[in-house]
Amino acid sequence: MSSTKLRLALFGSGRIGQVHARNIADHPELELVLIADPFIDGARALASRTAGRAVQDPDEVFADSTLDGVVIASPTPTHVDLMSTAAAHGLAVLCEKPIDLDIDTVLDCRERIKEHAVPIMLGFNRRFDPHFASIRTQVAAGAIGALEQLLITSRDPAPAPRDYIAASGGIFRDMTIHDLDMARFFLPNIVEVSAMGTNSFHDDTKALGDFDAATIILRGRDGEIVNITNSRHCAFGYDQRLEAFGSTGMLTAGNVAPTTVRRYGSNGTEEAPAYFPFFLERYAQAYRAELDAFALSIRTGDPCSPGFDDGVAALVLANAAAESAATGKTVAITD
Amino acid sequence: MSSTKLRLALFGSGRIGQVHARNIADHPELELVLIADPFIDGARALASRTAGRAVQDPDEVFADSTLDGVVIASPTPTHVDLMSTAAAHGLAVLCEKPIDLDIDTVLDCRERIKEHAVPIMLGFNRRFDPHFASIRTQVAAGAIGALEQLLITSRDPAPAPRDYIAASGGIFRDMTIHDLDMARFFLPNIVEVSAMGTNSFHDDTKALGDFDAATIILRGRDGEIVNITNSRHCAFGYDQRLEAFGSTGMLTAGNVAPTTVRRYGSNGTEEAPAYFPFFLERYAQAYRAELDAFALSIRTGDPCSPGFDDGVAALVLANAAAESAATGKTVAITD
Amino acid sequence: MSSTKLRLALFGSGRIGQVHARNIADHPELELVLIADPFIDGARALASRTAGRAVQDPDEVFADSTLDGVVIASPTPTHVDLMSTAAAHGLAVLCEKPIDLDIDTVLDCRERIKEHAVPIMLGFNRRFDPHFASIRTQVAAGAIGALEQLLITSRDPAPAPRDYIAASGGIFRDMTIHDLDMARFFLPNIVEVSAMGTNSFHDDTKALGDFDAATIILRGRDGEIVNITNSRHCAFGYDQRLEAFGSTGMLTAGNVAPTTVRRYGSNGTEEAPAYFPFFLERYAQAYRAELDAFALSIRTGDPCSPGFDDGVAALVLANAAAESAATGKTVAITD
Amino acid sequence: MSSTKLRLALFGSGRIGQVHARNIADHPELELVLIADPFIDGARALASRTAGRAVQDPDEVFADSTLDGVVIASPTPTHVDLMSTAAAHGLAVLCEKPIDLDIDTVLDCRERIKEHAVPIMLGFNRRFDPHFASIRTQVAAGAIGALEQLLITSRDPAPAPRDYIAASGGIFRDMTIHDLDMARFFLPNIVEVSAMGTNSFHDDTKALGDFDAATIILRGRDGEIVNITNSRHCAFGYDQRLEAFGSTGMLTAGNVAPTTVRRYGSNGTEEAPAYFPFFLERYAQAYRAELDAFALSIRTGDPCSPGFDDGVAALVLANAAAESAATGKTVAITD
Repeated sequence: MSSTKLRLALFGSGRIGQVHARNIADHPELELVLIADPFIDGARALASRTAGRAVQDPDEVFADSTLDGVVIASPTPTHVDLMSTAAAHGLAVLCEKPIDLDIDTVLDCRERIKEHAVPIMLGFNRRFDPHFASIRTQVAAGAIGALEQLLITSRDPAPAPRDYIAASGGIFRDMTIHDLDMARFFLPNIVEVSAMGTNSFHDDTKALGDFDAATIILRGRDGEIVNITNSRHCAFGYDQRLEAFGSTGMLTAGNVAPTTVRRYGSNGTEEAPAYFPFFLERYAQAYRAELDAFALSIRTGDPCSPGFDDGVAALVLANAAAESAATGKTVAITD
Repeated sequence: MSSTKLRLALFGSGRIGQVHARNIADHPELELVLIADPFIDGARALASRTAGRAVQDPDEVFADSTLDGVVIASPTPTHVDLMSTAAAHGLAVLCEKPIDLDIDTVLDCRERIKEHAVPIMLGFNRRFDPHFASIRTQVAAGAIGALEQLLITSRDPAPAPRDYIAASGGIFRDMTIHDLDMARFFLPNIVEVSAMGTNSFHDDTKALGDFDAATIILRGRDGEIVNITNSRHCAFGYDQRLEAFGSTGMLTAGNVAPTTVRRYGSNGTEEAPAYFPFFLERYAQAYRAELDAFALSIRTGDPCSPGFDDGVAALVLANAAAESAATGKTVAITD
Repeated sequence: MSSTKLRLALFGSGRIGQVHARNIADHPELELVLIADPFIDGARALASRTAGRAVQDPDEVFADSTLDGVVIASPTPTHVDLMSTAAAHGLAVLCEKPIDLDIDTVLDCRERIKEHAVPIMLGFNRRFDPHFASIRTQVAAGAIGALEQLLITSRDPAPAPRDYIAASGGIFRDMTIHDLDMARFFLPNIVEVSAMGTNSFHDDTKALGDFDAATIILRGRDGEIVNITNSRHCAFGYDQRLEAFGSTGMLTAGNVAPTTVRRYGSNGTEEAPAYFPFFLERYAQAYRAELDAFALSIRTGDPCSPGFDDGVAALVLANAAAESAATGKTVAITD
Repeated sequence: MSSTKLRLALFGSGRIGQVHARNIADHPELELVLIADPFIDGARALASRTAGRAVQDPDEVFADSTLDGVVIASPTPTHVDLMSTAAAHGLAVLCEKPIDLDIDTVLDCRERIKEHAVPIMLGFNRRFDPHFASIRTQVAAGAIGALEQLLITSRDPAPAPRDYIAASGGIFRDMTIHDLDMARFFLPNIVEVSAMGTNSFHDDTKALGDFDAATIILRGRDGEIVNITNSRHCAFGYDQRLEAFGSTGMLTAGNVAPTTVRRYGSNGTEEAPAYFPFFLERYAQAYRAELDAFALSIRTGDPCSPGFDDGVAALVLANAAAESAATGKTVAITD
């Protein structure tokens, strides 16, 4: 353990902000110094439960010259400005996805932060999930030969509120983007995207012109196929699975239940408990491991993974999926 | 048990013909009377191991007025003629898929046999698999609410010989067609097809202009999505799985191993045996149940399910998949 | 396949007799010639559904000089006489367990049949179960090193009728005897028996002075431990499991469900179907494989396994278990 | 969260002491003030990695009037003195099992501490394992009707060093005692004990007159049967399982692997990873939950569970098991 802790500020005291605040406070190498939120009561309540001082104005964060980095968990429209300003102040950044819903804004941001050689990490937390990470490590070690097919199942337990959906940028940019990054975690070079969206159960989503379920097919540079299945609801909880099929074998990761208990009765047998209900529980380990990696990048100066360009690439794929779903045509990805 | 057995003739003494011969011979209600094959040695060897008399000329079958029906397991190019002639002789027909690789030939055959009110069953044996059939029964009974997503995994253990592939009509018409029928078993009305084929490992297949793996997405009339994953090889055997996702739950069917034995060692735990290697073992029960259904249709005169029109519909979808994979565009299915 | 079928007679048209009748009738190498039962209507009904001719008097069986063997599935008190007479007539015998409930009667029978060199097989059908047999084969091949602990779980779905229990000889001689034979299938030389019986739910059984559940511990010659768990009821069906723990690993065999289907809902996940309810379904394959082995012994003249002495040994262990449960003392087994 | 943390001292800086030190240091309601160990270097190293001040003399602990409680993780022979002295100083005590290997010493200790109304908790950590605890909660809620049979499998990965075994008090008092407490967690009133020990693989253990494997059968007051299987080695890791069989169903808890990943290859399928290797990993959650319960008892003054008398009862059963294994007789337990 280092003798001095890394000093971090947090933007946003909402659902994800609360996860990060608790994890930073519990992390032996990190110190939560400031929590910034225009909704100051939220920041205060969070600070009292974890650590740090609540501030309303982001500039109070940038005025603190003792900081090492920031975690951006505020609403998406604030990401680009906060990230740019933080980089300009020499602060390392861990920014929740997406960088922005508009690709031009994202590319413009990239230009602006390029000159500041600070670590920028994108919050694609699932790369740090021990189940998925174990598969990737084994695939990289050749455990299943050449990776040929990757199947990603990703279903939310229930649709978000109407306001959230309206501002989300659509299922591909909001939900699928995590799966697109998972695809790129295994196969960074995607050359084609084909998508089919559907409205299977949720009138609100349909009224907003968005899909509540979708299937997305990607083609990798060497002919690998990625197959993503999404739904905005799932009766049995948060459905997060992965199947990596290779030339000499297959690896799968299943859902996670809180215990190994199984029940046997006259109507059914071997029944497992309900799975972890949503991302806070399912990816609890991943959020902590993400902070470990962020801390390490700050210490070493090594580039973060996933970094800014991974955020760009995922958004490009999400845009292509939206286009394919609208046109019924496969969309080619160019560099 | 009926007092008189139904008398059947079999065309073809190859791999599938042998399955049917054994099952007919063992069936308490069926009698295998004739086995016809131009390669008469094959027919003779099979008859000596099961039952019936070997004949070389199909006309010897049609000359036997004591027969109740025929099972057609000869090469695809012979299907239409044998089926038409059998129907014209008032014989019930169980014909292996596909009817023919050419849709016009198939539609023409339909016209010709329409007037003969004989039971025609198509050999989509997987409908009779107890695992898949159980899911369909439960879905129909509302066990998972409205069916929203259907995922079909279908991977062969190893590619067929080059000659077989060359004459197969391509992966969609030869292999996927079973999965397309399975899709229609759950969702008879498919309105859109999108497919992506790839060449991931097999040079022979590529040289023939065919794919060795493919992903196919179907849209049902009410927005349901079907997701089919195919590969021409699979290191761990014959991979045949189904996942039915509905508004209130999910049902899955996994692969089948010969025993429930599991092994625990220092490197891994809970290891199950290798799965049944290919369709003869995996679908052994299905082939027998198919004969039960065929016998019942002959007895009752009720229409067979799957019937001739199911063969037509699957071929239409396979053709659409091939077109979509070639053009990168979603193909609409019209009645 | 042999040119001539082996000709068998069956004693008993009850539950087990019906299993054997159907299996003999379906077996390509066996012919069911006679079914003998003092309750002639039962024999007639069974013969009409399977094969053979019904007779009332056992002597009609012994008068038929064309027979190769007999299957004895009549009530236990008839076993010794039928077996002795059959052996004297040079007929091979497959006799359901137990030979008799009285060890002196059994040993006396052994003396009488010793001189007739006919194959005698005992109906310990579980030795032919493919799941348990696979474990034994692997253990014998060294897959788990030295076998150190063997755990057998054996629970019936529900208690038999009061009359059956009253005549059964008690749980150890009636139910545990199968598990004791399974123990000896892996570890033929048992040197100590300790048992604890209990009355956990069934007043009828208690009133008869019998136990409705029991735990039996055996010690093998080389210090191996066998642990048997019995119950006369089981809410989730017929519970038949095995765990072989060795110096380098473990092999387990679980219960068998009719399909691989699993159900996922809001209250529970991965639920498997109800298991096969009782021995007719659970051990269907075993009963057929048992006949294969019997037929082979008749053809080759090789000793049957399990043979008469396996029946003796299992009864000796059952008696020791009963004594141990009564006295609270471990009982030594001497040769 | 309380405004003031509970102040604890820890005796012992060995393997278990290190677990407790880390957990106390990370616990939001607890403060690790002192670590006492005659081997002062161990205490110092541990304090530098966690928290608190290292001291050599236990009296330095008892001289600190600011403490709320102590955790005793020092060698067994020191337990009784430290517990008595701590109680006399009004300190709450969490003591690792066993209290002592000698029942008279334990009963004498009980007399001495009776007058001091301090919370005394025994370190039977498995009661806090979420898997086992979930089963007990469900059993108590009637999920499986009346509990009739309880099977506990408990195998260590490898035998401890010879010196440890020599001082351990034997397998029943050292290893089985955890399982005996687990039995009492479900069925507090045990009336009979029968045990069989064996030497299956370890010469050192045999040379010391101890067993390396054992099976123990307990009878509950209402006829319930508990079946414990122990081994001092296990090729596939730390084997910790539970099966609760009741009148209307069954609940099982399996082993725990670090991920849900499963591997499929040509030789085997569905292979899970190696399990957690030993108690530090397997029971990590349990050790933390144990501290939660200890903290709650200190705050509320409510009696601890498991408490001192649970330690007495487990030792009584262990002694009975040793006697039964030596004599071959079932031993009755009297109050």
